Amino acid sequence: MSDDLTATQTAVVPEGYEVLPWTRGFGRQIGPLYHRHGDGGDVLGFRVEEHHTNGLGNCHGGMLMSFADMAWGRVVSVERSVSWVTVRLTCDFLSGARLGDWVEGAGELLGESDGVFTVRGRIWAGERMLMTGTGVFKALRERAPRPGEKAFQG
Amino acid sequence: MSDDLTATQTAVVPEGYEVLPWTRGFGRQIGPLYHRHGDGGDVLGFRVEEHHTNGLGNCHGGMLMSFADMAWGRVVSVERSVSWVTVRLTCDFLSGARLGDWVEGAGELLGESDGVFTVRGRIWAGERMLMTGTGVFKALRERAPRPGEKAFQG
Repeated sequence: MSDDLTATQTAVVPEGYEVLPWTRGFGRQIGPLYHRHGDGGDVLGFRVEEHHTNGLGNCHGGMLMSFADMAWGRVVSVERSVSWVTVRLTCDFLSGARLGDWVEGAGELLGESDGVFTVRGRIWAGERMLMTGTGVFKALRERAPRPGEKAFQG
Repeated sequence: MSDDLTATQTAVVPEGYEVLPWTRGFGRQIGPLYHRHGDGGDVLGFRVEEHHTNGLGNCHGGMLMSFADMAWGRVVSVERSVSWVTVRLTCDFLSGARLGDWVEGAGELLGESDGVFTVRGRIWAGERMLMTGTGVFKALRERAPRPGEKAFQG
């Protein structure tokens, strides 16, 4: 919702992060989201804004799970240049994120078999771990690698 | 995002459903969502609109998980009149939802111990099961019952 961006949303993005240019669909609706290239692969990030909050004023669990799906599944995109769907996601909520927190997430590819990828994921805010879990993703089809991605080796 | 509602979003809501009056935060951002009182408790529903879609034009997995969190956790609100947080959610994706589908979801309370609730949940569209899973939710504090809710029996 670029029309809804407030000054605080666009301000104070940590160094190294670039906005993900998602102009449609659910990715835009819950954004803006950002990414940076870390040592172990891509890290996604977002700042908790009012449109991410639950009735208690903290980040909604649904937002954290949506972010987990994107941040953990991203390792499949980056490592294999395939489009994919989520088969199973297990999310353990360890701590809440507060309005204004900068939240980061990344996944680690544990295994791959017949186009099914198992990913261990984490979401954190500063020193505080917010969520750990496991994602199972299934490759749909090969696509041209984007900048920074490896070619499909199906 | 009431400003963003299109004619198709507000039209064609199945009989028995009422819109959830969520005017703030993540619930508004991913709405509109609806509910009806079914035989086994509350059922939540929404129509898949453009702002729920992924890159393939289907409902985004993050949207389905966010909806699962709300639809499955709702049994805790309705049965016990407590505010709660999600501890763990496991979602198995069985089938995708397409743009325009009417999606429904509900949870069944399996167990309760020391303020921890275990819920078995389902999400479906017509005859097609989209997701099954299990939610673990923790009660935070008692609150006044809303219409149709039972009092807390801690």
